[in-house]
Amino acid sequence: MLTIPDLIKGKRDGRVLSDEEIRTFVRMVTNKSIQEAQIGAMLMAIWQKGMIDSEIQTLTREMMSSGEVMSWPKSWEGLVVDKHSTGGVGDKVSLVLVPALAVCGCKVPMISGRGLAHTGGTLDKMESIPGFNINQSASQILEILSSVGCCIVGQTESLVPADRVLYALRDATSTVDSLPLIAGSIISKKGAESLSALVLDVKFGQAALYKDLKGAKELAHLLVKVGNGLGIRTGAVLSCMNSMIGRCVGNSLEVMESLETLKGRGPDDLMELVNTLGGVLLLMTGLVPDLSEGRKQIHEAVTGGAALSRFQAMLEAQGVAREAAMQLCSAHTDYFKVLRKSEHQLELQSGADGTVLDINGLVIAEVLHNLGAGRTKAGQAINHSVGAELLVSVGQRVAKGDSWLRLHHEDAALPPDLISRLQNAVKLGNADTGVRPKLIEELLLPS
Amino acid sequence: MLTIPDLIKGKRDGRVLSDEEIRTFVRMVTNKSIQEAQIGAMLMAIWQKGMIDSEIQTLTREMMSSGEVMSWPKSWEGLVVDKHSTGGVGDKVSLVLVPALAVCGCKVPMISGRGLAHTGGTLDKMESIPGFNINQSASQILEILSSVGCCIVGQTESLVPADRVLYALRDATSTVDSLPLIAGSIISKKGAESLSALVLDVKFGQAALYKDLKGAKELAHLLVKVGNGLGIRTGAVLSCMNSMIGRCVGNSLEVMESLETLKGRGPDDLMELVNTLGGVLLLMTGLVPDLSEGRKQIHEAVTGGAALSRFQAMLEAQGVAREAAMQLCSAHTDYFKVLRKSEHQLELQSGADGTVLDINGLVIAEVLHNLGAGRTKAGQAINHSVGAELLVSVGQRVAKGDSWLRLHHEDAALPPDLISRLQNAVKLGNADTGVRPKLIEELLLPS
Repeated sequence: MLTIPDLIKGKRDGRVLSDEEIRTFVRMVTNKSIQEAQIGAMLMAIWQKGMIDSEIQTLTREMMSSGEVMSWPKSWEGLVVDKHSTGGVGDKVSLVLVPALAVCGCKVPMISGRGLAHTGGTLDKMESIPGFNINQSASQILEILSSVGCCIVGQTESLVPADRVLYALRDATSTVDSLPLIAGSIISKKGAESLSALVLDVKFGQAALYKDLKGAKELAHLLVKVGNGLGIRTGAVLSCMNSMIGRCVGNSLEVMESLETLKGRGPDDLMELVNTLGGVLLLMTGLVPDLSEGRKQIHEAVTGGAALSRFQAMLEAQGVAREAAMQLCSAHTDYFKVLRKSEHQLELQSGADGTVLDINGLVIAEVLHNLGAGRTKAGQAINHSVGAELLVSVGQRVAKGDSWLRLHHEDAALPPDLISRLQNAVKLGNADTGVRPKLIEELLLPS
Repeated sequence: MLTIPDLIKGKRDGRVLSDEEIRTFVRMVTNKSIQEAQIGAMLMAIWQKGMIDSEIQTLTREMMSSGEVMSWPKSWEGLVVDKHSTGGVGDKVSLVLVPALAVCGCKVPMISGRGLAHTGGTLDKMESIPGFNINQSASQILEILSSVGCCIVGQTESLVPADRVLYALRDATSTVDSLPLIAGSIISKKGAESLSALVLDVKFGQAALYKDLKGAKELAHLLVKVGNGLGIRTGAVLSCMNSMIGRCVGNSLEVMESLETLKGRGPDDLMELVNTLGGVLLLMTGLVPDLSEGRKQIHEAVTGGAALSRFQAMLEAQGVAREAAMQLCSAHTDYFKVLRKSEHQLELQSGADGTVLDINGLVIAEVLHNLGAGRTKAGQAINHSVGAELLVSVGQRVAKGDSWLRLHHEDAALPPDLISRLQNAVKLGNADTGVRPKLIEELLLPS
């Protein structure tokens, strides 16, 4: 008979686990018939010894099947899509991309997460809009997708319960950064959404989980393989993340920047990511014949205003008062009539003349986290108004005394060490080499 | 601030943990402020990455200090001793050695354990004697040691609580066979007994935990180092364990063989182990000037009958009725007037002529375990009467049809596969090479 200690011993010694063993583990995690200490030991054994592709495939499939799997009307076949990002500073791509995809004919049941540590969560951004309700039942999601075409919701209780247990314990047991566990967690949730196509934004660089391209590439290849193995047409975009996406970081500020983008005034890097990720998805669904047509259709949906209307409809469908939604989505508006503004704003000045060579987004995100923008533990309350606006860009000349960052904070008194950490996040020099890494490094498309 | 995930991450990555980190871990295990999953992950990380000697020393010291530490009258200084064995088939050394040491002037507060899987536990053997009570409080132990000089008791609730938690979880998480965890568990419990001297019987061979000498040697050296590091004069004996110790296996049968030994009719291998382990202890306490004098004193205590009287006194002090104790300890007796006899006895006959080349003690122990002599889970009831008596020895000529093993069993019907496993445990051949490994391979004495 298969016992849990034998199963742990197998992985502990680096053995390839059988489908039956992996199924038993996931089932016992789901129905809580395994001791927590055994889950902890198993997670650490997987972290240490890894898994081969077929084990990861089985782990992902079993996790997906541990709960409810969504089902969609026959007429949506091939059209249900989603995007997942490994997390970047100022990453507001979803807010722009989701309604744009709906405009282009896709159904987008985006199930997203909250932020932990310095990474922002799409749900937190959406919740900075008063009234927005991320809790939607399966039947409500179906209704919103029928009428609007897209939604941004939280994970329901019944979806992938095995992941909920493992995800919480991975954090506590320092086993987050394990390829099999990352792949299992991400793809099982997407599998339970019964997607037709999925695009992954896998980031690398100083503000990303993977500092170098190599690690990010390895993850991207694995996710693409496992996603396609589940029958989802899965592609990935490797994108560089040294600084931040756009110029705003912080929940409310990122909603504002997303709305500006949907009004045709978005920053180039954000638009580039939206167009590429959306283009890849449209291509994979077969709605467009090639990538450039896909990019073009997404671009037009955003700049032409159609995505903005769709976004407004989504806000209303998910509980935002019509008045507020209209206010946010009107061409010229004071966003702070709807979104809460922090008590204090402070502009930081450059201490010298020079050219901006680098802005370290990770440092900015960490300081904002300390000021209350993010949580340290799941379930913690956060302050949606805390954030920062970048007032310069890399390559720009600044003079001593020029403002380079506007900080939105709540307490009048700011710890001096946080200010000096922020000041050190910008790197000035006398010469700009002019060589900047490409934003989009590589595309991985299913064969 | 030191967090548990950081601490797990440290060991996960093979870092040497600081004293402060190890202390924090043990304290949180003791006061249950750490998640079980985190303990499981930490145990697996220690299994995978190991610990250096100084970490093991700290782990052991902190585990020892996690509960009550016994204290003894000043006049016993240097005299409080104990023995620990890594477990062997038919290992009844304690039952003979403990009273012999008391006769030689030592105080022996032996805190022992119950058996798990095929290994027998000294407590189980003692409990096959009706009335024997292994549960004695600290003050009762002090009283028995004052009057009798020795006792054999179970671990109290207040002693080394950290080990109770870790020990149970090691079994569940397949992290039993980790040198740092073994050393921490064994030596912390001996440290809490406030011993002056400790001898370890580390076994190797086909019926031992370590099949080869190398692994056993590594453990012995570590235990000696950690024990001496705690201020206990610690020595070790490396002994070979291919078959079994003596001729009886099973709780009641081993009590009988121990009593026979205390009456001067013991098997040579058992006497050799008792003399050596006792001699080493007497030498380390300084009660004798050299090992041969120590061996001689122990031998005389056993063969002269003084140890038998002391054993009888210990039985009475620990709850056995005087009548029963006297009956067991009288020169010629029917042990089954006191000890329960199993319902059935079966003699197994040799299937061929030949010389006994090998008897696999592990196989015999496993079959007895299946017949109810041992437990699979902590807390399970066992049958003290189930056991086996070996009727031949290695090197002896047997003819086809000669009885070689007497099996004591409870159910009339025996599964045929168990019988055939037993029959395969004896290996016959035509020539006896005559080369048998030494029983005592090596002594490690503190410098």
